[in-house]
Amino acid sequence: MILFQSDYQEGADPSVLEALQKTNAEQSAGYGDDDLTALVKEQIRTLCEAPGADVHFFVGGTQANLTIIAAALKPFEGVISSDLGHINTHETGAVEATGHKVLTLPNANGKITADQIRRTYDGHVRDINHEHIVRPAMIYLSHPTELGTLYTRAELDAVHAAAQDCGLKLFIDGARLAYGIAADETVNLPYLASICDVFTIGGTKCGALFGEVAVLKSAQDWPHFRYHIKQRGALFAKGRLLAVQFQALLTDNRYVTLGREANEKARRIRQAFLGKGYSLLCDTKANQIFPVLPNGALEALGREFRFAFWEAVDAGHTAVRICVGVTTPEANVTALLRAVEALPRF
Amino acid sequence: MILFQSDYQEGADPSVLEALQKTNAEQSAGYGDDDLTALVKEQIRTLCEAPGADVHFFVGGTQANLTIIAAALKPFEGVISSDLGHINTHETGAVEATGHKVLTLPNANGKITADQIRRTYDGHVRDINHEHIVRPAMIYLSHPTELGTLYTRAELDAVHAAAQDCGLKLFIDGARLAYGIAADETVNLPYLASICDVFTIGGTKCGALFGEVAVLKSAQDWPHFRYHIKQRGALFAKGRLLAVQFQALLTDNRYVTLGREANEKARRIRQAFLGKGYSLLCDTKANQIFPVLPNGALEALGREFRFAFWEAVDAGHTAVRICVGVTTPEANVTALLRAVEALPRF
Amino acid sequence: MILFQSDYQEGADPSVLEALQKTNAEQSAGYGDDDLTALVKEQIRTLCEAPGADVHFFVGGTQANLTIIAAALKPFEGVISSDLGHINTHETGAVEATGHKVLTLPNANGKITADQIRRTYDGHVRDINHEHIVRPAMIYLSHPTELGTLYTRAELDAVHAAAQDCGLKLFIDGARLAYGIAADETVNLPYLASICDVFTIGGTKCGALFGEVAVLKSAQDWPHFRYHIKQRGALFAKGRLLAVQFQALLTDNRYVTLGREANEKARRIRQAFLGKGYSLLCDTKANQIFPVLPNGALEALGREFRFAFWEAVDAGHTAVRICVGVTTPEANVTALLRAVEALPRF
Amino acid sequence: MILFQSDYQEGADPSVLEALQKTNAEQSAGYGDDDLTALVKEQIRTLCEAPGADVHFFVGGTQANLTIIAAALKPFEGVISSDLGHINTHETGAVEATGHKVLTLPNANGKITADQIRRTYDGHVRDINHEHIVRPAMIYLSHPTELGTLYTRAELDAVHAAAQDCGLKLFIDGARLAYGIAADETVNLPYLASICDVFTIGGTKCGALFGEVAVLKSAQDWPHFRYHIKQRGALFAKGRLLAVQFQALLTDNRYVTLGREANEKARRIRQAFLGKGYSLLCDTKANQIFPVLPNGALEALGREFRFAFWEAVDAGHTAVRICVGVTTPEANVTALLRAVEALPRF
Repeated sequence: MILFQSDYQEGADPSVLEALQKTNAEQSAGYGDDDLTALVKEQIRTLCEAPGADVHFFVGGTQANLTIIAAALKPFEGVISSDLGHINTHETGAVEATGHKVLTLPNANGKITADQIRRTYDGHVRDINHEHIVRPAMIYLSHPTELGTLYTRAELDAVHAAAQDCGLKLFIDGARLAYGIAADETVNLPYLASICDVFTIGGTKCGALFGEVAVLKSAQDWPHFRYHIKQRGALFAKGRLLAVQFQALLTDNRYVTLGREANEKARRIRQAFLGKGYSLLCDTKANQIFPVLPNGALEALGREFRFAFWEAVDAGHTAVRICVGVTTPEANVTALLRAVEALPRF
Repeated sequence: MILFQSDYQEGADPSVLEALQKTNAEQSAGYGDDDLTALVKEQIRTLCEAPGADVHFFVGGTQANLTIIAAALKPFEGVISSDLGHINTHETGAVEATGHKVLTLPNANGKITADQIRRTYDGHVRDINHEHIVRPAMIYLSHPTELGTLYTRAELDAVHAAAQDCGLKLFIDGARLAYGIAADETVNLPYLASICDVFTIGGTKCGALFGEVAVLKSAQDWPHFRYHIKQRGALFAKGRLLAVQFQALLTDNRYVTLGREANEKARRIRQAFLGKGYSLLCDTKANQIFPVLPNGALEALGREFRFAFWEAVDAGHTAVRICVGVTTPEANVTALLRAVEALPRF
Repeated sequence: MILFQSDYQEGADPSVLEALQKTNAEQSAGYGDDDLTALVKEQIRTLCEAPGADVHFFVGGTQANLTIIAAALKPFEGVISSDLGHINTHETGAVEATGHKVLTLPNANGKITADQIRRTYDGHVRDINHEHIVRPAMIYLSHPTELGTLYTRAELDAVHAAAQDCGLKLFIDGARLAYGIAADETVNLPYLASICDVFTIGGTKCGALFGEVAVLKSAQDWPHFRYHIKQRGALFAKGRLLAVQFQALLTDNRYVTLGREANEKARRIRQAFLGKGYSLLCDTKANQIFPVLPNGALEALGREFRFAFWEAVDAGHTAVRICVGVTTPEANVTALLRAVEALPRF
Repeated sequence: MILFQSDYQEGADPSVLEALQKTNAEQSAGYGDDDLTALVKEQIRTLCEAPGADVHFFVGGTQANLTIIAAALKPFEGVISSDLGHINTHETGAVEATGHKVLTLPNANGKITADQIRRTYDGHVRDINHEHIVRPAMIYLSHPTELGTLYTRAELDAVHAAAQDCGLKLFIDGARLAYGIAADETVNLPYLASICDVFTIGGTKCGALFGEVAVLKSAQDWPHFRYHIKQRGALFAKGRLLAVQFQALLTDNRYVTLGREANEKARRIRQAFLGKGYSLLCDTKANQIFPVLPNGALEALGREFRFAFWEAVDAGHTAVRICVGVTTPEANVTALLRAVEALPRF
C-alpha cells in the first residue's frame, strides 16, 4: 500500500539525518542554550531580514500554536480564524484548553479576507455589550491553507493593513511553508517577517524529522517567551537537535528547493486527474491536491493507494486529499500517475 | 569544557540513531497509528507483564507529566508531590496551567513517605470545610528522585498501600528509570506496573534522542487518552520515530544495561570525591552525584568541567550536581577522575 | 426615561425583599449549610418530582453556566450550543476560560434541533481523526431562547432522545423559565427534571434580587459538586439568602403566576406593535418581544423609552428587543402602549 | 445554639436592608452601568484619596481574588502568599484553576515579611534555570490576616518597598477591613490606596448582605477589567444592589464605626478568656479571637455556643476561632461572657 494521506508518511530528508548523525556525540547545553542553536537562530534572522526578531524552535505544530496564542492573548481575548483553521478543527481544543475562544469566519477556498476581519473587529467594538463578548486580538492564518490554497501577496497586504488598523496581532501558521514559498516566491521569509507579529516555518511536513520555527517579529513584544514554552511542555531538552535539522534545511535555500520538487510532483498528479476529466475541489499550486473522484475510481485506486477522505461531494463522487511531500519517493508518484492513467471510464 | 550538568549533554545511544537511519524511508501512518508503534507497545506491555495496560509515547517529560496529571484529575483535585518534585519546581507551573494545585510535602532525601500521604489525605477528609480545600487525588513520585536517591521496594509498597486505602492514584515519574532499575532491580518494570496507576519510562535522559513512555496500568481507567495527548500538543506527528527509538533501547534489556554502565561511571566519580575526603549531599546509587566541594576545589575543577550549581552549603562549601548518562563518554569520566585526583588539599 | 432593555431594570418582587427583611437577624451556618437551605432544596425536589436530584443555588447565570459545564466535561470535551446561545455570545468566553470549546450549530428562531445534534455527534465519531477534534459531550439549550422563543415539548422530547442515543448530557438554561412555563405549562419543572441532566430555574430575571437554582437530575452523577462551586468563586457566603428568595418565589406557584402576569403585559405590547402594522423578528409567547420598527418610530419612541438594539434589518428598519419582567410596573406598560398607539404613520 | 464560627452568621446591618428596600422599585441599567454605581465609585475614590483609581464591585471574596489575580498575571507568573493565605488554603484551588501557582511563604502570626518576599524574588531571578520556574509577580496579603492579626504600617511600608524594588504587584485582601481599620487607623483607605496596586474593601463580613469593593490603584494599569469580571461569572446583573449597600456602609464613616463596635465586643470576650487564665493562639486586636481552651471548657461551652475548630494544641487543649461581626447581637456576646465567667476550673 502506498500512502498519500499526509505529509508525515516518511522520516526526514537524508541531509537532516546525516547532520544528526554527524553531531551526535557533541556535547552541548540543554534547552537550546547552546552555540549551534544561537547560530541557527541568527541564520534565520538573516534569512528573514529581521535582525530584531526572536526565534524559537518547537517540536510540533499544535504545541507551537497553543504556546504562541496563549502567550499573545489576555484571558478575555480570542483569535480570529477561518472555520477550517487547523486550530479550530484539528487540535482537540488546544487553544480553548489555554482559556481562549477561537472566533471563526467562514472560509472561501480555505481563506479569510481583510474585510471579514475588519467587520468582526468593528462589530465587536461597536457593540454596546462588548464587555460581554470575547475581544478579537489576533488573526490566525495558514499559508498554504488547510485546503492547499495560497494567499496572494495582495491579500496578505490587505490582511496586514486590517491588523494594523484594528490593533490585532497577525500570526501565520507556516506548517507547509516550504511548498508555499516554492509556489509563490513573493510570499517569502522577509515578506512574512515584515507583516506578521509571529509566523512559523514548518519542518515536520517539509523534510525535517520534526520541528517548527517560530519567528517573533520583535523580541521586546514577546518578553519572557521561554517561560511560556517551558510551561506548555514545549521546551525540548536536547534543543540542539532542532537547530541541527533546520541548519540542514535552510542552508543553500534547500528548504525552498525541496518544496519546489514536491510541488512539481504534485503538479504532475494534478494534471493526471485533470487529464482524466476529474475536477478539483479547489485549485492548488502547492503540495496538496483535492481531486473529486467518481466513487468507482476511488475504489480502484484504493486497492493500491491510500488517500485522506475529505468529503462526499454527491452520491457518486468523493473528494480526497493527496499530499506530496519532500520525502515522497518519485517511485510512488510514478506508480500513482500510471494507475490514474489506467483508470477505466466511470 | 567538559559538561556534566545534566543528562542532556549529548545526542543518543548509537543504536538509536542507527535504527532511525535504517527505517527513515519507510512509509507509515502518522500519530502513532502505525504497525511498529503497535508492536513496540506490545513489547512494553510484555516487559511490564501488564497485558491490560495502555502504552503511549511522549516527546518530553513535562509534556508527559502535565498531560497525565490533567487527564487524571477533576478540576478541584490536586496532586501530592515532594516539595522538590519536578512538577513543583522545574516545570514553570505546567500543572497549575492545566488548572490543578500541586500539594507539596517536605522531602527527606528527595523522598516523601506513606505516612505523610496518609496524614494529608486524612486531614483533608476530616476537615469540616474540605469543600473549600483542594482535594488530594494523585501521588506524584520521581524514581530516581530529583536528588538522585531511590525509593526502596518497601517504601513503595507502603506508598502503594496508602494510595489504595485513600483512593489516590499513584504516578511515578521515571525520567531516569534506566539508572533506577540498574541500581535496584527489585524496583523493575513489572513491579512498577503492579503498583502504579501510571508511570513513565524515560528515554531523553536514558539514551534516546528524545521520548518518554507512559504506561497506564489499566486501559479502561484512562478512556480517550489520545484526545488528551492531542489537546496538550503532545501527539507526535511521526509517532513511529518514538517507537523506533524505544525498540532499540528496550530490546535485549539494553535499557538497563546502559543504565548500569552509567551508574558504574557515576560510582567511580563518587568514590573519587569520597576518597578526597569530600562529603555528599545525599547518598546516591544511580547516575546523579551531589558532592559538597570546598569552593577552591570547585573553582579548580570549573576550569575544565561544568557542573550544575545545587546550593551553597556554607561560606566555604558548595554542593553541585554531576550527571553521568548513557551517552557520557568514558574519556570525560577519566578526565574528571584525573582532575579530582590531582586536586590540592583545601 | 422608561427602561425596557432587559430583565434587570428593577430590584425584586416585594415578597422577596420582605422575606429577606423578616429573616435578617436569624443566625445560620454559612455557605448554604443551614436548615432553611435544606428545606428549600427539598421543596424544589418536590416541585420537580425528582427526589434523587441535587439542588444548588448560584448568584448569577454565567457563574452557574460555567460551573456546571466545567464540572460536566472532561478536558477534551465540548458543549453543543446554538450560535446565539448565551454561553457562546455573551459570557466573554467564560466556558473557554475553563478550557472547553463551545461547538456551535446555526439556530432557527433561536433554536437548534435533535437532527442537528445527531449529525454533529455522528460526524464526530465517524471521523477517522476524531481524536484530533473536540468531542461533543453536552447539549446546552436556553428555554426560553435568547430570541424569546420556546421549544415545544415534542422538540425537547426529540432532543432528549438524541442526547440519550448519543450519550450527551442535556443542560437547559432556564434563566427566564418563569416566563417559559407560564407560556407553555407542558414544559414544566417535573418534565424538565425528567429529560435534563441539569437545568436551571432563573431568579435574577424572574423576580428575585438575584439567584439561579441548578437542579442536577441525579446527585450521584455529580459527585463533589460543591467543590466545583467553591473553586469557581460561586459558593455564596450567606447561602441562606438564596434559599429565602426562592422560598418566597416558589411557594404557592408564585413563580409561574408572576411569569404569567409579565407574559400578559408583553402580549399587550406585542399586539400594539402588530396593530400598528409592524412585524416581529420572531414570534414569541413569553416576556421578550422583537418588533421590527421603522426608524422613525424607533426615534419617536426613543425619546421616552429605552429598548435594546438588536439588529439593523434594512436601511429603514431596526429590530429591537423589549423585555417585560416580573418587576416591570404596569404604569410603564401603559405608557408604552399609549406611545405606540400615538405613533404617526411611517 | 449561638453561633460564633464565622462572620456570616446573620444578614446585614439594618441600614443596608433599608437602603435596598427604599430603592427597590427604581429602574436602572444593568451590570453596574447605572448612575448610583458611578456615584458610589466616586465616593470610594474620594474616601481613598485616589482620583485615578478604578473601582469595581464583586459579590464575594473568592470571586474577587481569582478575577484580580488572573487579570494581573501572565500565564507563567505566580502570586506570593502566606501559607495560611485564604487563596492558598480555602478557595479550592480557585487561583490554580485560572492557571497560576500560589507561591507560599511560611507565616509568622499569619504574616509574611518584606525580607521573605525579597529573598523569594532574588532567588528566582538569580537561578540560572529561572525560565523553568514560576515567576513571582504579585504579593497577596490579608489585612487583618487569617489569624486575625494586623500588619503594622511599618511592616506594610517595608512590603511596599520590596514590591517596588522587585517589580511585584501588591494586592491586599481586605475581606475584614472594617475591623482592621477600626483597630489601627493608620492603615486606612488612603494609605492602602497609596501602597497597593489593588486592594479590596470587604462587605460580606462587615455588615453588607454581600459584596466586596476592589480598588485598582491606577485605572490605566488594569485595562478592560470589566471583560475579566464578566468572564469569571462575576459581573452582577443588578449591579446597582452592590452600590446601594456600600453607599449605606461607607457614608458618615459608618463602615469603621461598625467595625469598632465589633472589635470592642471581641475585646470583651478576649478579656473574659484571659481573665480565666486561658492563653490565645495569637494576640489579636480586631474581630477574631483564637483562645486555647482546656477540652473540658470547650465541651462545656459547646452546649450553648458554636465556634470554629482551629487546631488541637496538645492532648488537653484545643484552639478555636471566635468571630464577632457587625451583625453579632449584643445579647450573644453577653451570653458568652456569662458562660465563660461561669466555667469551673479545668
